[in-house]
Amino acid sequence: MTTEIRSLDPRIITRGREFFSSISGESPSVFNKGWWTGKVMDWAMKNDEFKVQMFRFVDVLPYLNTSESLSRHIEEYFAGDDSNIPDVLKWGATKTKIGGGLIAKVLNKTIRSNIESMARQFIIGQEAKEAVKGIKKLRKDGFTFVLDLLGEATVSEKESDAYRDGYMDVLEAIHKELGKWKPLGGGSGSRDWGHAPMVNVAVKPSAFYSQSKPVDMEGTVEGMISRIEPIYRKVMDMGGFMCIDMEQLKYKDATIELYKRLRTKYPDYENIGLVFQAYLRCTEDDVREFLDWSREKKLPVSIRLVKGAYWDYETVMAKQNGWPVPVWTHKPESDMAYERIAKMILENNDICHFACASHNIRTISAVMELAAELKVPEERYEFQVLYGMAEPVRKGLKNVAKRVRLYCPYGDLLPGMAYLVRRLLENTANESFLKQTFADEADMDRLLENPEETLRRQLEGACITREEESGLPRFNNHPVVDFTLEAERNAFPKSIAKVRAAAGGRVPLFINGQEVVTDDTLDSYNPADPTEIIGTVCQAGTDEVARAVEAASEAYLAWRDVTPEERAEALLKASRYLQDNIHDLCALQVLEVGKQWDQAHADVGEAIDFLEYYAREMIRLGSPRRMGHAPGEMSHLFYQGKGVAAVIAPWNFPLAISVGMVSAAIVSGCPVVYKPAGPSSCVGGKLVDMWKAAGLPDGVFNFCPGRGSVMGDHLVDHPSVSVIAFTGSMEVGLRIQERAAVVQPGQQQCKRVIAEMGGKNATIIDDDADLDEAVLGVLYAAFGFQGQKCSACSRVIVLDSIYDRFVERLTEAAQSVKLGPAEDPANYMGPVVDKAAQENVLRYVGIAEKEGRVLVKRKAPSEFTSKGGCYVPLTIVENITKDDRLAQEEVFGPVLSVMRAKDMDEALDIANSTRFALTGAIYSRSPKHLERAYREFRVGNLYLNKPSVGALVERHAFGGFKMSGVGSKSGGPDYLLQFLDPRLVCENTIRRGFAPIEEDDDWLS
Amino acid sequence: MTTEIRSLDPRIITRGREFFSSISGESPSVFNKGWWTGKVMDWAMKNDEFKVQMFRFVDVLPYLNTSESLSRHIEEYFAGDDSNIPDVLKWGATKTKIGGGLIAKVLNKTIRSNIESMARQFIIGQEAKEAVKGIKKLRKDGFTFVLDLLGEATVSEKESDAYRDGYMDVLEAIHKELGKWKPLGGGSGSRDWGHAPMVNVAVKPSAFYSQSKPVDMEGTVEGMISRIEPIYRKVMDMGGFMCIDMEQLKYKDATIELYKRLRTKYPDYENIGLVFQAYLRCTEDDVREFLDWSREKKLPVSIRLVKGAYWDYETVMAKQNGWPVPVWTHKPESDMAYERIAKMILENNDICHFACASHNIRTISAVMELAAELKVPEERYEFQVLYGMAEPVRKGLKNVAKRVRLYCPYGDLLPGMAYLVRRLLENTANESFLKQTFADEADMDRLLENPEETLRRQLEGACITREEESGLPRFNNHPVVDFTLEAERNAFPKSIAKVRAAAGGRVPLFINGQEVVTDDTLDSYNPADPTEIIGTVCQAGTDEVARAVEAASEAYLAWRDVTPEERAEALLKASRYLQDNIHDLCALQVLEVGKQWDQAHADVGEAIDFLEYYAREMIRLGSPRRMGHAPGEMSHLFYQGKGVAAVIAPWNFPLAISVGMVSAAIVSGCPVVYKPAGPSSCVGGKLVDMWKAAGLPDGVFNFCPGRGSVMGDHLVDHPSVSVIAFTGSMEVGLRIQERAAVVQPGQQQCKRVIAEMGGKNATIIDDDADLDEAVLGVLYAAFGFQGQKCSACSRVIVLDSIYDRFVERLTEAAQSVKLGPAEDPANYMGPVVDKAAQENVLRYVGIAEKEGRVLVKRKAPSEFTSKGGCYVPLTIVENITKDDRLAQEEVFGPVLSVMRAKDMDEALDIANSTRFALTGAIYSRSPKHLERAYREFRVGNLYLNKPSVGALVERHAFGGFKMSGVGSKSGGPDYLLQFLDPRLVCENTIRRGFAPIEEDDDWLS
Repeated sequence: MTTEIRSLDPRIITRGREFFSSISGESPSVFNKGWWTGKVMDWAMKNDEFKVQMFRFVDVLPYLNTSESLSRHIEEYFAGDDSNIPDVLKWGATKTKIGGGLIAKVLNKTIRSNIESMARQFIIGQEAKEAVKGIKKLRKDGFTFVLDLLGEATVSEKESDAYRDGYMDVLEAIHKELGKWKPLGGGSGSRDWGHAPMVNVAVKPSAFYSQSKPVDMEGTVEGMISRIEPIYRKVMDMGGFMCIDMEQLKYKDATIELYKRLRTKYPDYENIGLVFQAYLRCTEDDVREFLDWSREKKLPVSIRLVKGAYWDYETVMAKQNGWPVPVWTHKPESDMAYERIAKMILENNDICHFACASHNIRTISAVMELAAELKVPEERYEFQVLYGMAEPVRKGLKNVAKRVRLYCPYGDLLPGMAYLVRRLLENTANESFLKQTFADEADMDRLLENPEETLRRQLEGACITREEESGLPRFNNHPVVDFTLEAERNAFPKSIAKVRAAAGGRVPLFINGQEVVTDDTLDSYNPADPTEIIGTVCQAGTDEVARAVEAASEAYLAWRDVTPEERAEALLKASRYLQDNIHDLCALQVLEVGKQWDQAHADVGEAIDFLEYYAREMIRLGSPRRMGHAPGEMSHLFYQGKGVAAVIAPWNFPLAISVGMVSAAIVSGCPVVYKPAGPSSCVGGKLVDMWKAAGLPDGVFNFCPGRGSVMGDHLVDHPSVSVIAFTGSMEVGLRIQERAAVVQPGQQQCKRVIAEMGGKNATIIDDDADLDEAVLGVLYAAFGFQGQKCSACSRVIVLDSIYDRFVERLTEAAQSVKLGPAEDPANYMGPVVDKAAQENVLRYVGIAEKEGRVLVKRKAPSEFTSKGGCYVPLTIVENITKDDRLAQEEVFGPVLSVMRAKDMDEALDIANSTRFALTGAIYSRSPKHLERAYREFRVGNLYLNKPSVGALVERHAFGGFKMSGVGSKSGGPDYLLQFLDPRLVCENTIRRGFAPIEEDDDWLS
Repeated sequence: MTTEIRSLDPRIITRGREFFSSISGESPSVFNKGWWTGKVMDWAMKNDEFKVQMFRFVDVLPYLNTSESLSRHIEEYFAGDDSNIPDVLKWGATKTKIGGGLIAKVLNKTIRSNIESMARQFIIGQEAKEAVKGIKKLRKDGFTFVLDLLGEATVSEKESDAYRDGYMDVLEAIHKELGKWKPLGGGSGSRDWGHAPMVNVAVKPSAFYSQSKPVDMEGTVEGMISRIEPIYRKVMDMGGFMCIDMEQLKYKDATIELYKRLRTKYPDYENIGLVFQAYLRCTEDDVREFLDWSREKKLPVSIRLVKGAYWDYETVMAKQNGWPVPVWTHKPESDMAYERIAKMILENNDICHFACASHNIRTISAVMELAAELKVPEERYEFQVLYGMAEPVRKGLKNVAKRVRLYCPYGDLLPGMAYLVRRLLENTANESFLKQTFADEADMDRLLENPEETLRRQLEGACITREEESGLPRFNNHPVVDFTLEAERNAFPKSIAKVRAAAGGRVPLFINGQEVVTDDTLDSYNPADPTEIIGTVCQAGTDEVARAVEAASEAYLAWRDVTPEERAEALLKASRYLQDNIHDLCALQVLEVGKQWDQAHADVGEAIDFLEYYAREMIRLGSPRRMGHAPGEMSHLFYQGKGVAAVIAPWNFPLAISVGMVSAAIVSGCPVVYKPAGPSSCVGGKLVDMWKAAGLPDGVFNFCPGRGSVMGDHLVDHPSVSVIAFTGSMEVGLRIQERAAVVQPGQQQCKRVIAEMGGKNATIIDDDADLDEAVLGVLYAAFGFQGQKCSACSRVIVLDSIYDRFVERLTEAAQSVKLGPAEDPANYMGPVVDKAAQENVLRYVGIAEKEGRVLVKRKAPSEFTSKGGCYVPLTIVENITKDDRLAQEEVFGPVLSVMRAKDMDEALDIANSTRFALTGAIYSRSPKHLERAYREFRVGNLYLNKPSVGALVERHAFGGFKMSGVGSKSGGPDYLLQFLDPRLVCENTIRRGFAPIEEDDDWLS
């Protein structure tokens, strides 16, 4: 197909030249340096750092409600000595300090009004009335419109309702005017150019359902429809057109499905369109499938084809999540894809109307020539450009193609700023056609050439290097589960059914390579339905513990001398086993501890990460390090495993934390006696299979589930245990520490205790926080997996001036999430892990009611609670102060305390006021406050503008201090050192006065 | 002067050409590839690794007394798959494994006999009779001789006696023959060439006094004279000539002094010469001074000028000790110096006879032309070359200069091997004139050119780079004290007198920047004379401790946030203070704890090292480390000081260990409460001055000497203490560990205990150990500073087959050292630190007498003990077995147990059989055994062919495991981590889907 387009190239280029000459000398207003916007764009294009600061400032601007706040931010963003900061901003930034800052106040007001008018350039109006007025003006100039309501971020159902209502309002306002409008292109009737509905709106579906998520496809589609359908009916009433916009990839499948349902429900109404993004690698297939569907169902469709506006986001998220990059990574590839897909659509013009949305003159020319070649009737395609941008292009299009529609956002400047940033980015990107054409004044031939040529040129000389260390590929986290993939969505229920069918069997101990059965057993049950037994777990007594420690001690003698590389290899094999069995392992967690799908996957992924990371770490540490550079001696520092490790694990990350502690010990040369937590013993038992698959020698891994009260002290006290790795409560951790410090008769090594204990983690909400992110972040950190994470947010400290806005949105958001069993991915929160946990949390809910004012206390629907599941209410309580128990004690459940702080000083003081120092987060767009939190918010893991949970191995090496932990961060570069004794061997290499000189000797220069 | 030599260049070159043409076609036998030696030399010159292996093998060969031992070593040295190993060796090495190894046995015998004949090539005979025969043969060929007795290494006075007797014997043998000899050069009388004594011997002075050491100049010179004088008298009796050889630089001043004394004592006998080495930078001045002395005293002298044979040794030792390299580092510089010095000597031929000892034809030609130019009479100079080397040169010399004397070593092949290695090295060095001339066949013009030219060429293109890290020069250990410098030798008595004069004052506490005086005090006394009070030390009680901890806690809040660079700067200032006051600080240790001069200097040097190293380490760790490479997030791992540190220090390294622990805490951001050990509280008090000089804020360092029984627990238990750094006994260390594990009410942090505890360190003597080194190494490790080091050797485990030889030499060596106060540098061992230590050691001496057979029990002379000093006998006890208390308990004094092992298996088993795992050493020349010890001799610090004491910061990062330590090595890369809590801050840098991409992001390639 490409070659066919290539055959049109001469005509495309000729048409493009004509296009250019018809707009010769014109420039989009955004690049007009005579205006403030043009200047800013010019600076931004010249200096990346300024660009970042500027766009971030634009982003935060709507939150800066006081003059003080505005001045402070201007100073923080622009007061550096960077010569690239334009004077007008620098003045604003520096003058604040002088003489009460009257001059600055004036300057800063100017800055605000400049930026606001910059935003207004792209937004047709802030209110319905204004928008209608704008539209009338456009129509007068010969342009039609498609209207889009700003404000995509909805964190609650209430906000989604409001968003829907906004559409209804503007449609009503237009409806009132509609009668007065004359169709464009002359003629009578209610259609522009004789065929196009005059009213045209675009909707972004995700905003219509605050609980949208890929894993819950059905719920998401239905949620979206429930609010879009009324709008669509109104549009139909008005004889209008509705286009469903395409947003981030994660909503793509739901959006296509949404379109199909609406289209099918109203088969006779054709005026509904869908957007596809040419930058997605999958779009060509998607469009083909969509056209086939249309043809099969005999339902004509309409497509708006765009290049795509989330390229940065999609690439960054893919990289962060370990996914293949879903978009074309070279701009010309997107351009090529656009032309190919446009051709496909135009070839199907009998069933598909086409809206070509592009500012790229090569693209536009190609579409025109393709349409001409394919003899597509004029009413079957049109052109769209963005309001306020690329005026020369819209002018040229009007000249050439006649039918130009402007995409017109309207609404509050607050969400408008987000839109502004996106548009500014688009215009300042190096590969932007507009920038190249009108700012860089690139060669016209280059701009019009077939993008295949451009690509070829770009790829020339590009080279791919892959960094490696320790003979292995560089460590990367296991990919986050991608629920946009149907295979993933289907794998979970299948595995859950499989695991359920096999559940209830006996789980034996595993000592010295042999299964060991005990009389004493303990049932592990499904917390959503305690009658469902997941496994009957054998319980080790002191005898079994003694046998296990003895086996480990014997294995130690050989295992410590196995090379680090070989030990690492065992971990890599174990990792392979987990990867191969990931869905079954997830399913077991869903059933045994009530983990949500994504959380279960993250847990198994983290286990894989620990194996992969510690394997590499041991290879790094295992290579003897030369110390000093003295000639005539060769000093090597290297490490030896300390001895037998007792690993005492928690149930909340039943695989990850267990595998992490166990594998760290094993790769360090320390055989392990592993005691899983009671409620997750079945998951714990999977370690036996894993290490079998890895081919560990007998005795190196021993599985000893058991009652802490029966065998815990015995294991800790055992004189042959050299390392104790524990994760759990502070009380147990401190007890272990005390007991382990007593050297027992016959003991060879002082015991090393690594204890990850509790947290009482705070999130600070600064007065300029991006609430779209902060509300969802806090919600997730507080209630994900029922708040049963040591990293969970249990205190949110909100600055006074933003308190009400935040708390209202948070409360509504909390009211919007679904509660119920983890098995159903629609549910945000399920039961806590067991009856004991349930009791404990309920006790704290009672305390919450006494100490503060309960804002939210949501119970799961009775259909679930009636089964006796371990449900507790999702609880948010305000009016909690520093000394309250709710502010000091770890609940380990879904109870969030809201605390008010008058300023950042107080917020930090409250944040640091507990015995714990595990995790923390702050949402702020003040560079100074972020810097200050970096220094003064003293916790092990602090997150800036991120939730405090979800630590990833290496990237977020995890662990705290104060009473939160003894030892160094798991998944970090110092972790294995805790299992190792350093040894140094120094050889005198001089004999008879002669020493071989080594390359790195400090030798004569 | 150089220009004058340059003016002779044409004549020198002409003469050199004639020299070359007179020996055209000849080659030294060592390079004759037809012979085994020539082949080996050829291989060695082509392959550095083989050269090292070969020379090491030659070195160990004399110890390989059994066929099994020989075969094993051949296999270990040569069985690699290195294609550069000559077949004859490889066969020997590999065939051992086949069929009982009969072929190998034959081959290996051949190898031994080949190497022995290689040695014989350079040695004129193994016995006096043989030597005399050889000499007669030489004289017949027209060469005179200078005889040198091999066997320089004497570890005891008995061996020095034997060495002297060896000379007397050979002289007696020659004496008997002398009457029969006819003078060379015809003529009658008893002189060769009419002027030269027929008998000529060379002596290496250090061998004549086993206790030679630069610090004890007078003792060394007198010790040497006591045994050389009889030889000299015998030589004079025979009308002979005696030349005093020059050895390592450290003996140079003593050797010159020795010459002067003998020359002065026998003013009328001129036939005594001294060697100078042209490669020493100082030699030109030394010779000038020597000639001035001769002229002033009117005592004619004789000089043999050599280039110098210890170049490798001198450079390596200088680099290891941190001294300026004392030798010329470019070979042509030595050649230039030789010509300049030769000219100076020849100009003074009226008072100085000259022996030109060189194989370099350029040098020889230059000397000849200089002598001609200066009209030096023939009897005033002669030429010398080495026996068995450079035959063409000696032939040429005989042709041209007539007067050639051969330097003839004689004696056992065992010490002969050492001599052989030195000669082989000389011949295979890249810059060797012989190699260049006869093996490389370098261009004659280049060989004869003025060495200034050669140097100029070598320096072209050489560039000097200096590695830096953290903005500071790379860490290097503080230089070892160089007692060859008179200034150092003088500084000590001066400082001791000064410190003594100031002794006895009150030492106050130092809390929160203020001196604090207490009623309770404790006197610190000189262990050599307990009536001498060094200081009256105020004693902290619980109140003072509480005040100190409180001050430290308050200081913590600010100090933790001072930048790592600023904290490091404080350490560098402290280091400057120590460097500026080093002699006074040493003197205080000599008086307060009885440290020998060198040991005291090493202690202060180590303190400096800790400051310099930890400063750099903190800068390294202080720089936040990016974790992961995900775009859109910036994760930083960095560290924060844990809190207040209690430092509880020992007295045995009173400054080093205190400064190490304290500075690690302070640089990490942890303010310190420091409790010195009672017996070294005055040294401890110097830390106050040091930190004052460094300008620390108040409260960051607090000095709290006190009685452990009164305030120890209180300090350890204090809830505001977060780190306890302790060095001392196991008992106290374990007590601290237990107490610290209990979390006290109000305690914020779990306490981190770093405890360096005891050792029961073993040294293994393999059956092929170089006993010259092993005996001295064990002696030093066991009795240096009276064995009061945790690293001291307290068990020597000797393999059966070398047991008797080793123990005899060790015993004799122990009988040879001097005992007495540390003030006198002649003394090897002094009193233990105090009365309690004395009592304890005496108790163990009693146990030694019960458990084993005491070999040595040497008491200090009564002149010292009578003063009530804390002396204990130097004790060596044998027949100690694994379970004896002497094999298991730390004595911390000069008591050495000798244990017998039948083989390496048993030796390692014994070595590893204690509760401790601190240091260890092995002396072996078996690569396999060294490798095995590397793996299986499981201690914190293992030394191969080095004593187990004297660990240096960084190079020998120090610390053990098992009951020897809790925590990581001091002076090592993991040490500071123990004072630090890791923190991680992860910033989400995405805003509105846009993230700035960082350079090290995992971004699109």
